[in-house]
Amino acid sequence: MSNQQTEKIRILSLGGLGEVGKNMYVIELDDEMMIIDAGCMHPADDMLGVDIVIPDISYLVENKEKIKGIILSHGHEDHIAAVPYVLRDLKVPVYGSKLTLALVKDHCDDVEVGHQPNFVEVHSDSKIKIGKTPISFFRTNHSIPDSLGIVVHTSQGPIVYTGDFKFDQNPVDGMPTEMGKLTEIGDKGVLCLLSDSHNAEIPGNTPSESFVAEGLKDAFHEASGRIIVAVYSSHIHRIQQVLNAAEKQERKVVVIGKPIERSVGIATDLGYLKDENDTLISKQDMKKYNREQIVILTTGSQGEPMSCLAKMAKGSHSLVKIEKYDRIVISAMPDPGNEKVVSQMVDLLSRTGAEVVYGKTKKVHVSGHASQEELKLMLNLIRPQHFIPVSGEYRMQHAHRNLAKTVGTDDSKIFLLEKGEVVEFTKRKGKLANKVTSGHVLIDGLGVGDVGNIVLRDRRLLSKDGILVVVVTLNKRHNQILSGPDIISRGFVYVRESEELIKNAEKLVTETLNQSIEQNQTEWAQLKGQVRDQLSRFLYEKTKRRPMIMPIIMET
Amino acid sequence: MSNQQTEKIRILSLGGLGEVGKNMYVIELDDEMMIIDAGCMHPADDMLGVDIVIPDISYLVENKEKIKGIILSHGHEDHIAAVPYVLRDLKVPVYGSKLTLALVKDHCDDVEVGHQPNFVEVHSDSKIKIGKTPISFFRTNHSIPDSLGIVVHTSQGPIVYTGDFKFDQNPVDGMPTEMGKLTEIGDKGVLCLLSDSHNAEIPGNTPSESFVAEGLKDAFHEASGRIIVAVYSSHIHRIQQVLNAAEKQERKVVVIGKPIERSVGIATDLGYLKDENDTLISKQDMKKYNREQIVILTTGSQGEPMSCLAKMAKGSHSLVKIEKYDRIVISAMPDPGNEKVVSQMVDLLSRTGAEVVYGKTKKVHVSGHASQEELKLMLNLIRPQHFIPVSGEYRMQHAHRNLAKTVGTDDSKIFLLEKGEVVEFTKRKGKLANKVTSGHVLIDGLGVGDVGNIVLRDRRLLSKDGILVVVVTLNKRHNQILSGPDIISRGFVYVRESEELIKNAEKLVTETLNQSIEQNQTEWAQLKGQVRDQLSRFLYEKTKRRPMIMPIIMET
Repeated sequence: MSNQQTEKIRILSLGGLGEVGKNMYVIELDDEMMIIDAGCMHPADDMLGVDIVIPDISYLVENKEKIKGIILSHGHEDHIAAVPYVLRDLKVPVYGSKLTLALVKDHCDDVEVGHQPNFVEVHSDSKIKIGKTPISFFRTNHSIPDSLGIVVHTSQGPIVYTGDFKFDQNPVDGMPTEMGKLTEIGDKGVLCLLSDSHNAEIPGNTPSESFVAEGLKDAFHEASGRIIVAVYSSHIHRIQQVLNAAEKQERKVVVIGKPIERSVGIATDLGYLKDENDTLISKQDMKKYNREQIVILTTGSQGEPMSCLAKMAKGSHSLVKIEKYDRIVISAMPDPGNEKVVSQMVDLLSRTGAEVVYGKTKKVHVSGHASQEELKLMLNLIRPQHFIPVSGEYRMQHAHRNLAKTVGTDDSKIFLLEKGEVVEFTKRKGKLANKVTSGHVLIDGLGVGDVGNIVLRDRRLLSKDGILVVVVTLNKRHNQILSGPDIISRGFVYVRESEELIKNAEKLVTETLNQSIEQNQTEWAQLKGQVRDQLSRFLYEKTKRRPMIMPIIMET
Repeated sequence: MSNQQTEKIRILSLGGLGEVGKNMYVIELDDEMMIIDAGCMHPADDMLGVDIVIPDISYLVENKEKIKGIILSHGHEDHIAAVPYVLRDLKVPVYGSKLTLALVKDHCDDVEVGHQPNFVEVHSDSKIKIGKTPISFFRTNHSIPDSLGIVVHTSQGPIVYTGDFKFDQNPVDGMPTEMGKLTEIGDKGVLCLLSDSHNAEIPGNTPSESFVAEGLKDAFHEASGRIIVAVYSSHIHRIQQVLNAAEKQERKVVVIGKPIERSVGIATDLGYLKDENDTLISKQDMKKYNREQIVILTTGSQGEPMSCLAKMAKGSHSLVKIEKYDRIVISAMPDPGNEKVVSQMVDLLSRTGAEVVYGKTKKVHVSGHASQEELKLMLNLIRPQHFIPVSGEYRMQHAHRNLAKTVGTDDSKIFLLEKGEVVEFTKRKGKLANKVTSGHVLIDGLGVGDVGNIVLRDRRLLSKDGILVVVVTLNKRHNQILSGPDIISRGFVYVRESEELIKNAEKLVTETLNQSIEQNQTEWAQLKGQVRDQLSRFLYEKTKRRPMIMPIIMET
C-alpha cells in the first residue's frame, strides 16, 4: 500500500464505456498516471471507409510526463490493438502476461511505432510497482488464455479491474478464476471495483467452455467428408477443443488463414496450445490425407466478406473450395451487427450443398463473459465501497448497476460513467469531477485521425445519391460562357437512361449563369452557389434525389 | 376443376425465394397466367441510397396478354407493396380480402399508377375464376387480420399457396386457420403445395399471439408515468392487445406516427380493430390526461432513425420527448440486420433514464409465422404430391425441405427453387424447365430501375474513400499547361491536415502531363488515363486509400 495517506485518486475511461470495444481506463494517483488496456473497435456502419477506431488519447498526450506505464489485462484486440498507436506518442513500459505481450508485439509489427517499446512480462503472482504504486494481479478465465485481473494498491484501498472474465468451473486449460485471491482482496476493503458488463443483461451463469466439447463431438459425428470449423483466431481454448475433437475422430487439423496461423503459431510456441499427438499438420501435407481425415480450422465466423471461409464458399480461395459433402461448423455467435452477414454466409454455404452447423441450439459456442449470477458473485467476493460498471454499451452498464444494487451496493456509490467522466476519491469517498477530452480517432489506411466528421459526412452524401461535377469555362472580360456546361456524374443515375435529364440540367446551368452574368453577379462563390442551388432544386424535383453538386468554373 | 385434362402447368417465383421479402409467384395454365402476391423488400446494405426493391417483372411484361389477374394473400408490404408498380405495366384485376385491398389502395395513393385499377374483394369462402381457372381460399392466421391461403384448381389437381401463416389456437380475433378446409383440400389430391418457410429453422410451435397479453400486462404493471409502446404499424392484432391492456389499467391510448395512424384508421373503419370503450383518444386530447393515464402507440420498433420512437428518444419529436419516468415497451424483435440499430436505440432510450422493456425474456412479442411442428402439420393436412418451400432465405427453404422429408414427402418431388426457376407439370408430374428472367429493380426517389450495378459500384467506391477531381487547362496548340492542376477532394481527407499531400499530388499531375506532352501523347483519353494511374498509385502509397479520381482536362 502506498505510504501517502493523502493521495488524490482519479479514475476515468477513454474508451469501453457506452460501447463494446476500445477499452482504455486511466488511474491517476496524485501526479502519477497509469493506463489500463488500450483496445480498438470496429467502425460503426456510418463510419464509411474507416478501417479501425481507437480512443482519442489527447488527454494522455497532454499529461505525457505523468504516465508511468500501460498494464494489459488480456490479448483481445479490443484491449490491446491501440497499443502501437499509443506508443507513438508515449514512451512508457507495457506490462502484460506472456501471451498478451506476444500478441501485442505481433500488432506492433504491423504499425510503425517509431521506437523500441519496453515490454515487461508479468504473471498472476507478480508484484510490481508502476511509479510509486504497488500493483498485483489475479488470474481470470476468459475466451483467451493468460487473462489477468489487475489490483492497484492505493492509500485509500485497492482498486480492482476485473478485465473480461467468467467463472468457468471446467476451464479447458484447468485455470479457473482465482476465487481465493478475490476473497483476500475483498477483505482489504476495496475502494472501487471496475467490472466487465458485457453480459449483464443475460440471466444465470454462462456455461463452461468445456460444454462446447459435447457440441463439437455431435457436430463432427459421422461427417462423411471434410469438416471445416470457423472460430475466432485468438480463441485458443476453442482451438484446443477442436484439436481434441479431431483427435478423437482420428482426423488431422490444418490451419488456414493468416491471423489464425499466426495465433496458433504463437500459442503453440508458448505452450498455450497442446498438440502432443501431432494432430496439427501443414497445408502442404493436407493432400496426403483423404477428405474424411481432415478438419480445416479457419476464420470467418463473423461473415467477413474477405475471410477464408467466405472465399471458400464463393470458390475463390486458392486452397479450399466448399463442396457437397463438406460439413461446416461455425463455432461462434454473430457479434451485434453481424447477424445479417453471417446468415448470408450460411446461405451461401448451404447453396454449395454442404451441411452447415451453426446457431445456439447446436451448442458449438459459449460466451467468454460472466452472466448475471457470476457478476453478482464477483461483487460479493470483492464487496467494493464504490462500483464502476465498465466494458459495455450503456444499457449493459445500466443492467450491471441494477445487479449491484440487488447485492447491496449503495446506489450513490455506483458510477454510471460516460467516456471522459472522472471519479475523484478523497478520504475513501468518490465523487464526479470535471470531464476530460475523449472520443474516437478513425484510422483509414495509413491515416490516423485525418478522417473526421466532414469527410464522413461527404462520404455519406456521396454514398446516398452520388456526385455531379459541373464544368464550365467563362470568359470573364466579355461576360460569356466559352465552353460547357458539361455535367459528369458518378453514382447518380445511368447516363444512357437519363440523357434528357442531364441535357435539361445543362440547359438550366447555362440559364442560371447567363442570368447571373446579366445581373453582374460574377463573384465565383456567388456563381457556384447559384448553380448548386438551382441544380439541386431541379434534380430533387425530377428524381427526389440529392446528389452532391460540385461546380467547377474556369476562367480565361 | 378445369375441363382441359391436358393442361400444361408452370409454377415459378419472381421474388421471395432466397430472400425474405418481395414475394411474387406466378402460375401458368396453358396460355393463361396469374400472379400471386407482389411485394417489396428493403434494400440490402450494399444497395447504397436505394429506397426499396421490387421484383424484376420483365417476364410478366413480355407475357402481358396472358396475365389474367393478381391475387393477394395478405396486406404486408412484402406481399403487396409492388402492386402499384406492377399495375403501371399490367392492367389486370387485383383480388384480395377487404383489409388487404384497403392497404393496397393506400399504397397506390403514394405511387403514380396511370390508370384506375380494378380491385375485386374476396373472402375466405369466395369462389372466383381467374381466366378459365377456378380459385378458392382458406382463412389463415398471421400477424395481420384477413389473411388468406389460395387454392388454384387445375385439371391436374389443386395448387395450394399458404401465404404467411401460423396455427394459432388462441387468435386475438377468434379466427384460426381453417383446418377443416385444409383437410378437405388435402383429400382432393393436391398437385403442389407452396408453403411459408420463414420459421422452418425454429423447433416446436410458435406461441399464440394471445401469449403477448400476459407480457404486456407485466410490462404495463405499476408504471408510474407514461407508457410508450412501439409496434409494427400493420400488426392490428398486437395493437388490439395494447388497447386491451391499456383499458384494463384505465389508460387511454394515443396513436402517433403517420403509418400507424393510417393503419389504425383503416382497421377501425373496417371493423378489424375494436374499441368499444373509447380507449383511443386523439393527439389533441392527450393533454387532458395525466402521464400515468396515457399509453402512446407508435412506430420505430426496428430502430429506424427517422421513426417516431427514435425522434422521441433524441428529443426531436414535436409532441413527445422521452423522460425519466416513462416506460418504453418494444413489442417486436429486430428483423435480421436490424439488431444493432435496435440496440443503439435501446441505449439511447436508457440514457434518458426511462425504463425499456424489450427482448425475448419479456414476452412482449411472438412471431407470426409457423414453426417446425406447424409446418409439418400443414404438410400432413395437405399431403401434396409436390412441394415447393417458398418465402424465405435459401437456408430456410432448405430446412423446410428437410421437414417435408421427415413427414414422408418424396425428396425427388420437393423443388428447392431459385427465383426465375420453373417447375412444369404434365400428367401430375413435375420437372424443372427453363429459367425465366428475374432479379431486383431498385427504386431510388422517383427513379425505378435507373440505379443499377455501375451506379451502385460508384456509390460504394465513393463511400469508401471519396473522390478527387483534378482540373487542368491545356493550351493544346502550344502544348502547355495554362492553369492548374487544381485538386478538389470530397470524402477523402481533411484538406488542412493534408495540404502537403495535395500539393505533392498536384506536382505529380503537372509532371505526368508535361511528360505526356513531350512524348506527344496528347489524346484526351490517354492523358486522363495517365493522370488517373499515376495519381492513384501515389495516393495509395502515401495513404493506403483508393479514392475515385476524376481528371477534367479543358482545352483552349
